[in-house]
Order: sequence, then C-alpha cells, then structure tokens
Amino acid sequence: MSIGGNALYAQAGGVTAVLNATAVGLIAAWQAQAPADARLYGAREGVLGLLSERLVNLSALDQATLTALSYSPSAMLATCRHVIQPAEERQLVAMLAKYRIGTFFYNGGGGAARACLDVKRIVEAAGYPLNIVHVPKTIDNDIPGADTCPGFGSAAKYLATSMREASLDLAAMAGSSSKVFILETMGRYSGWLTAACGLAARHAGEGPHLLLVPERRFEPDRFLAQVAALVERYGYCAIAASEGLTGADGQLLQATGARDAAGDRQLGGVAPALAALVRQELGVKCHWSVADYLQRSARHLVSAVDIAQARATGAAAVTLLLAGAQEFSPVIRRLADQPYQWDIVPASLAVVTGPERRVPADCLTTDGFSLSAAGRTYLQPLIQGEDYPPFVDGLPDYATPDWRRYPVSA
Amino acid sequence: MSIGGNALYAQAGGVTAVLNATAVGLIAAWQAQAPADARLYGAREGVLGLLSERLVNLSALDQATLTALSYSPSAMLATCRHVIQPAEERQLVAMLAKYRIGTFFYNGGGGAARACLDVKRIVEAAGYPLNIVHVPKTIDNDIPGADTCPGFGSAAKYLATSMREASLDLAAMAGSSSKVFILETMGRYSGWLTAACGLAARHAGEGPHLLLVPERRFEPDRFLAQVAALVERYGYCAIAASEGLTGADGQLLQATGARDAAGDRQLGGVAPALAALVRQELGVKCHWSVADYLQRSARHLVSAVDIAQARATGAAAVTLLLAGAQEFSPVIRRLADQPYQWDIVPASLAVVTGPERRVPADCLTTDGFSLSAAGRTYLQPLIQGEDYPPFVDGLPDYATPDWRRYPVSA
Repeated sequence: MSIGGNALYAQAGGVTAVLNATAVGLIAAWQAQAPADARLYGAREGVLGLLSERLVNLSALDQATLTALSYSPSAMLATCRHVIQPAEERQLVAMLAKYRIGTFFYNGGGGAARACLDVKRIVEAAGYPLNIVHVPKTIDNDIPGADTCPGFGSAAKYLATSMREASLDLAAMAGSSSKVFILETMGRYSGWLTAACGLAARHAGEGPHLLLVPERRFEPDRFLAQVAALVERYGYCAIAASEGLTGADGQLLQATGARDAAGDRQLGGVAPALAALVRQELGVKCHWSVADYLQRSARHLVSAVDIAQARATGAAAVTLLLAGAQEFSPVIRRLADQPYQWDIVPASLAVVTGPERRVPADCLTTDGFSLSAAGRTYLQPLIQGEDYPPFVDGLPDYATPDWRRYPVSA
Repeated sequence: MSIGGNALYAQAGGVTAVLNATAVGLIAAWQAQAPADARLYGAREGVLGLLSERLVNLSALDQATLTALSYSPSAMLATCRHVIQPAEERQLVAMLAKYRIGTFFYNGGGGAARACLDVKRIVEAAGYPLNIVHVPKTIDNDIPGADTCPGFGSAAKYLATSMREASLDLAAMAGSSSKVFILETMGRYSGWLTAACGLAARHAGEGPHLLLVPERRFEPDRFLAQVAALVERYGYCAIAASEGLTGADGQLLQATGARDAAGDRQLGGVAPALAALVRQELGVKCHWSVADYLQRSARHLVSAVDIAQARATGAAAVTLLLAGAQEFSPVIRRLADQPYQWDIVPASLAVVTGPERRVPADCLTTDGFSLSAAGRTYLQPLIQGEDYPPFVDGLPDYATPDWRRYPVSA
C-alpha cells in the first residue's frame, strides 16, 4: 500500500540500554518492507533536529553498523524533551513538507507520546497529511495500555542484580559495621524499578528487606520502626527506595529543584536523605548508592526478553504501519505468564497518553514494603535471559556512528 | 614438610567481587597439597570468629560448593575490621592452641596486614609457634610491594564500563539537558579506581573528560574552569571523582563523620557535593552517581585476569607455605606489560604494611585530570577478559553456604 512518502524516526527523553535495539528493529524492518523509493530519515535530538534541519539518512545504514548499534546503549540519534512552541509550528510543517515526510515515528516515553498529540494538532491545523506513530520506550514502565515497555526489563534486571550483590556485601560486615544499605532507583512517580529489586530476595531474610515505592506515602516513624525490626531480626537491612518518594504532605522527599525543558522536576537524592535519617534516629552505620544513569545505560547486563521486545517493537511499528494502522503505538501485550508469551498490538495515542501506570496495590504486600506473589509473577518474566555485548580491550565495544557519513538531500 | 598442625583462614575488611575466588583457590590447594591430617578451618567475621570460637571446617567443602562459591561476590565467611584489644590477646592464643593452629591465613587489605603484625606480636610474646600469612585483597589497589591486588581489576572494569555507558547517556541529552555527570568511586586515599575510569575514553572527546584523584588537592576554581572549558569544547563533561578527595586545607571534601571499628572515616558523598558546586557556579544541569557497594560486589562483570590472579593468590599462599615460606604475603609481580605476564612471589609483612601505594604522577597527565600513556599501559591488562556467573531466573545464582553443615570439633 502507499505510505505517503518518506518517514522520519526520532528519539526522545531519557535513554535506555535497549533503545537502539528498537531503532535497529525499526530501521531493518523499513529497509526490508517499505517501498523502495520511500526513505527513512532520522532527526538528531528528537524534534529539535527536525526543526533545525539536522537529518540523517537511516536507509543508508548497513547491516554491520546496525548490528553494532543494537549492542550499544543510550540513543544513537540523541534525544530531547522539547515541547514544540507555537512559534515553531510553521517550521515543523515546512520541514515535514520539504522532506516529504508521510510518517513520523517518535520513540520515547510519556513525553514523546504527548509530543505526538502536539504534532497531530499542528499538522491537522495546517492540513498536512501525516501518520504519527509513537514507539514506546521507558525504564519507568509507566506507559498505560502496555504489559511492559522496552527498557524496563533491563533496568529491572540490572537493579535486582545490583541489589542481590550489595545485599551480600552488607551481610558480610553487618556483624561489626554497616547494618543498613539503601539503593535509590529511578522511575519517577512509579515504583516499578523499586518493586523489581524485590526479585533479588528468594526467601525471607535475603535482601532487599524493604521496598519504598512512591505509590505509598513515606512515613518516617513507620520506616524507622521497620528498619529497626529488620536489623534486629536478620542482623541487617537492605532497602530499595524510589527517587520519587513523597512525604505525608504529598511533597517530594528529595529533589534538586531543577526542572527540565518540559517542566519536570529533576529527582534524585532520596538515598542519602534516608541514610542520614537512619544514622541520626537509629544510630546505625549506613551505606547508600544512587545508580542514576548507570541503571538505564547498562547494556553490559540486559534482559534478553527486553532486547527481543525492544527490537520487535521497532519492527512492529513498521509492519503495523504498512498494514494500514493509523496514529498508533505498538505496545506489548501479555498472553501468558508462565511460560511468558507476548505479542505486539497497536494502541491508540489516546490510550498511551493516559494517566501514568503505577504499581497496583496487589503487586505489593499489604504493608507496601515487599513484593507480593502477584508482583513476582508479573515481573519475573521481564528480566529473563542475558545478551552480552562484544568486549574489546576489556570494555564493551559500543558504536557511535559518525552521522556525517549519512547525509540527507531533500 | 611439617607445617605444624592445622590452619585457619579468615577474611577481613571491605569485600570484593573476587575475594571468594581467592578463598576457593586457597581451600582447593590445601585440600590437594597439605598433609592429610592437617585441617583447614575458617573463622566467621575475621578474627572476631576466632576470639568467639565460631569456626567452620573448610576441609569438608566439596568441589561443587567450591565452584559455586568461586562465582559469588562478597565474603563467604563474613569479615570485620576489628583491631585486637589487649584484653583479647590471651583468648586469641588459647583458641589457636585449642584448635592446634600452626598457620593463620588472613585475607584482606592493609588493615588485615597490620592485624597480622599484631597477631605476630601477641603469639611471640606468648611463645606460641604460628606461621602468619597475609593473603592480599583490596579494590583500592593500595597494598605496597604488589603490581596489583585481587579485587582491583574487577572493580576497575566495572567502573570503566559504567563510565563508558553513562558517558553515552550524558551525550544523548547534553544538547538540551544535563551537561555534566559525576561518578564517585571508592578507593579511599588512592585514586586507582578513578584513574581506571579513564580507560573508558578511547580518544579525546569520549568520556570521562576529567579525573579527580585524591593524590591531587581539589581546587574548586581550577575544577570549575576545566568543566566549563570541556562543556564548551565537547558539549558535555563526564567526571570520575574519588571519595577521598581533599581540599586545599588537606581536609576531606566530604565524609559522613562516622568512623569504623578501626577508627577509619566513612567516606562518600563527594559526587553530590561536586554536582551542587557545578550547578551553583556554572548554572549547568548535572547528574551524579555514587556506586558504593555496587562497584565492589559486581560479580556479574569481573575481569578474567583478576579472577585468575585472585585464585592464584589463594593457591600460592598454600604452595609457598608448604615450600617453607614464613610470615609472608603472596603478591602479584608483573613480568611484562604486553602481553601481560605475571607471577606470584612472597613479600614480607613489613613490605605489605608499608605506606599505601598511591597513583604515581607519571600515570596521569601533567594537569592531573587524565590518564597518561604510562597509566594506560599499567591499567589496561588488569581489566582483560570476562567471566560471567551462572544465572537462574534472570539473576546471578550466588551461593551462600549454610555453615552449620561444616562443624569443627577441636
């Protein structure tokens, strides 16, 4: 069928370890399935690259480069969180027309999905025909309408592994030194990454002993009583805590105060704040870690399931488009828990721009401090399997293309 | 030859990803080479377990358990940083005599080496015959007289990998968001782990762009000027910073104020302090990470060279002992850089208790902010090769023995 000209692919928001696997899945599917005269362009830094005419020719990428990129974390084209301004709308449409763009693939999380709606409004007002595809990505796992999102499973696996390792570390010296360890996770206002840390505990007594998710208000007294009881019981207490914890007043426990281009607060710093509280109130020596970027860029330890889903999501964006889908997001649907079965179906932009998906009550124990059986059943399949990148000279050999080699002529 | 009775093995100080590989190397060598009637015991929590008679029978560990333990991070017997008190000296000698201990293997860093000297003084005063072997271990790489120490290569590989990954993350959003990332490393007053992060940069422009080691006094103005220049030049700046940085006054930039059992300060918190400085003085959005325990327990990403050296160090402790060595530490000696060749030789306890080995000036560029060619030549061999643990259900399958199954009867 006709797809109306060329296509543009861009990446948005915080990166993941498998975002480029989605890009590669999409590019490879386009190269294989799209009409020969329809080119796939990439914009540098999301919509900013479209507005400033920084485009590259993704149709020209060869197989070896695509393979190398599929093993590389971060965002091959770079990203932004830019909200398109009224003064930029005309330029946006002009650029789409100049490069005869009939399809816009925007690969990102909730912010990218909302940007898709903005683009839709702008091109409709201008009478410009454009099919808009939101391609999901987020370590936060908060996109509504999906079983999970590419990026989450790998960050979850990295954090659960790190939590298991740090808990063994803590156990080794708890008798005479630090008795509490706090690992801060990302995830903004969803506690999925903290909940996933719970997978590290195979039985009572193994860390983590306490999960602090933003779906529950943080109560200092209840927290301290729990820590004291766990240290008393097991000799030590390993804690996973979400960056987006809020107190009884609904205010963030910790944030830098900085805001990004889309007006979102920069989070981070919960772990040292909790550690100070434990030290001061319980008089216990405490260690803490803020993984920050490490958890979303750790291509050296990804989930094979996540990699497969990331790649399939990119490919499905093209396949569904060529099958006639309009304005959609290819989302993962769960067909069975054990063995895990899934496929990819189109969701509407309205669905994926709905309220963020947070951790439901039944995924946690009643007190909110541990993973429930239902939570484990949901999370366990998402971290399965390993997929190691090639190493050269002792370090992962990640690719960063020289985009000047892939110019675009309008 | 006679080795005078049984032997005792214990672990001390902060753990590493490969400490148990040394334990397994030592236990396997003992089982294979020691006289049949000479047993190898283990003390829980270092010398504390000897003083409180919490011993286990390491001679009884079977091959499958040893293999599983060789893949597990942390310290299988648990550790302490205990300094033997005058009131405990009599109990120490009584316990050694009760279990007919002729050899004491103490596996740890500088603190364990100094403890070996304490034990030597105590047993000599009591007229108790004991051969004392310090078995080196530290991620800090600061034990004098050795080319490197088991534990360092793996922590270095983990941090350099993380730095490469985080630098790619930073690069992806630097155009419109965070332009600075700071990764805090351990290492106390030695900058080896920060220097090792420099391996992630293959060419100018790749992160890290700036190393802050404790061998150089931290000068805020010089630091800020450098960050501003690098952001101007490359668009972003990735920084590795040591936890033990000191200012112009020689005081630690950041520490919790807590002290451990041996009186050492608990370090940590340099990264958020530097990030606050960058934000305030340069007005640049900044991310930071404190890896803490994660860097010394990450058995999921170790150096194959480090694993081989860790295991060989444990084996050499036994082999050198049986060959007649007295009061020594089996240390790694470099024979060639490229290809890297090494062996293990006995060093005296006096040597390994000397001043901490710090990063020499020639391993860094003149300004102290980057790795020099000499630094790269020294560090590169230590992170070579991968050695992945088995995974079960998506997570590394680490072993934690039930020590009640290995009782000791005096």
